Amino acid sequence: RDPEAEKQARDREGMLTKPPGSLGRLEELAVWLAGWQGRVKPKLDRVEVFVFAGSHGVTARGVSAFPAEVTAQMVGNFEAGGAAINQLAKQVGASLTVIPLHVDRPTADFTVAPAMDEEALLEAVNAGYDAVKDRPDLIVLGEMGIGNTTVAAALSTALLGGAGADWVGRGTGVDDDGLRRKASAVDDAVTCHGDALKDPIEALRRVGGRELAAMFGATLAARHQRVPVLLDGFVCTAAALPLASLDPDGLAHAWAAHVSAEAGHRRLLDAMQLKPLLDLGMRLGEASGACLAVNILRGAIACHNGMATFAEAGVSDG
Amino acid sequence: RDPEAEKQARDREGMLTKPPGSLGRLEELAVWLAGWQGRVKPKLDRVEVFVFAGSHGVTARGVSAFPAEVTAQMVGNFEAGGAAINQLAKQVGASLTVIPLHVDRPTADFTVAPAMDEEALLEAVNAGYDAVKDRPDLIVLGEMGIGNTTVAAALSTALLGGAGADWVGRGTGVDDDGLRRKASAVDDAVTCHGDALKDPIEALRRVGGRELAAMFGATLAARHQRVPVLLDGFVCTAAALPLASLDPDGLAHAWAAHVSAEAGHRRLLDAMQLKPLLDLGMRLGEASGACLAVNILRGAIACHNGMATFAEAGVSDG
Repeated sequence: RDPEAEKQARDREGMLTKPPGSLGRLEELAVWLAGWQGRVKPKLDRVEVFVFAGSHGVTARGVSAFPAEVTAQMVGNFEAGGAAINQLAKQVGASLTVIPLHVDRPTADFTVAPAMDEEALLEAVNAGYDAVKDRPDLIVLGEMGIGNTTVAAALSTALLGGAGADWVGRGTGVDDDGLRRKASAVDDAVTCHGDALKDPIEALRRVGGRELAAMFGATLAARHQRVPVLLDGFVCTAAALPLASLDPDGLAHAWAAHVSAEAGHRRLLDAMQLKPLLDLGMRLGEASGACLAVNILRGAIACHNGMATFAEAGVSDG
Repeated sequence: RDPEAEKQARDREGMLTKPPGSLGRLEELAVWLAGWQGRVKPKLDRVEVFVFAGSHGVTARGVSAFPAEVTAQMVGNFEAGGAAINQLAKQVGASLTVIPLHVDRPTADFTVAPAMDEEALLEAVNAGYDAVKDRPDLIVLGEMGIGNTTVAAALSTALLGGAGADWVGRGTGVDDDGLRRKASAVDDAVTCHGDALKDPIEALRRVGGRELAAMFGATLAARHQRVPVLLDGFVCTAAALPLASLDPDGLAHAWAAHVSAEAGHRRLLDAMQLKPLLDLGMRLGEASGACLAVNILRGAIACHNGMATFAEAGVSDG
């Protein structure tokens, strides 16, 4: 990041016509954007939303309230413009790119085998890495994949410990039996893969999924280009977890946009020391919570860039 | 409100291509707007922000970190377009109207006398009531007035009990001595006015202020026109408190847009059973927090109005 732009942005916040700190996290956001964009007055002209979709062999374990074919159907709905993320991306003035990753070819059931071989992992990571081009002002990440809250729970358990029951939630709406099946699937996966899960990338390959690997790749590409990132819900945050496990500073360019209603998300954010911007009981995925937060960032930079200083306005500064 | 539009809007939420409830509070917001606007698909074409400004005799007690003349200076800054609310109103596509209420003529110091006589109270309430014209789609309320977090604390203490120390906070940034002076001023006011404060309107006259009376009037006018309202921070919420005290359903048309960092606000929201949308550590007033939340409402209706149903999209509904 650019420490000089960050410092000048912080100084500017102190001169604007408001009591110091009174815009709260809006001030932090403006300074954060300034640092990563290398601009004292950040801009959000080019905001790009990426939704990655993948299919999961673990759905055979009865871990979702919806049938696995809904993943492909929802990709069609994204392409036709009918999903929540289509409306939200339009509302915040962002482009939307949907990237299906072999949705007709599920990963292996990770309770008995690695979800992906190395080639499949690399292909998915690259799909995400290559999506981030020419340094946009901000990227917003999200996903679609029936069964993938179980995948996120497995990856969280692998890298942060605990049992499956600590990390699973109701996802799209499973009943109590479904919740028990999810917890068992996670526990079985951890038993099956054992110590191999200690390596973050190997954990992503063995108990991850294609859309998670792609979000991991996109987050990494954003870091290399110094592009700020908004993370969405539980699955998206879990996809970024291997970066945090590899490097404690690995997600300094990313902000948790919201905490979802999915049970494991708050626990995961706490473990990763990410403080979410919004808490609206959302649990849809699709980058919906992250996209909604784009306008909070727009508000932050509108104030930061447009307000008068005490000197300009002739206001006494206390 | 319109129960038929509300019911149809709720039914529509259940048909859209997402797991039921997965948009969380966005779904509640869309249904709430539908009910008050009387439209199954609500709109936010005409959003009006009102900022009322007033001066307070209690500033003589040393309750603010800023001198009293800053109120008039900030009105000038609003008119010149340099304040936070100017940037935020523009960013959310809302009109902004600033209504100064005799800022050159402070209310009486309410620690020793009623803040306003009946004529002054009525004039201020009417200024707010008359500001709401021709049924806008949404109004957003806020204020400016050096010393008015002490006023809000006094009104909260009068109507909800407790001591001054329970309700005062650092406002624009007073030190520990300032905080003690604020608590004493509130306690002195409660002692001075005694049982007269049991009547909500009389409390508003005796320990309120002009901008609070105007926000009370605007909230009442909105109710009469069935216009939904976004409330801002501690002072704005305290101004609406007399309506809640008079009628438990009196604020059903209003939503707390955010919880501010001012100490008393969360306590006040809890007492009024209002659940804020945002929690971003803001404490500026000026309708800034409420204005920021307008885009959350825009996101809610974008999804509600624009998403495909399961039947339209050919997606299995679980």
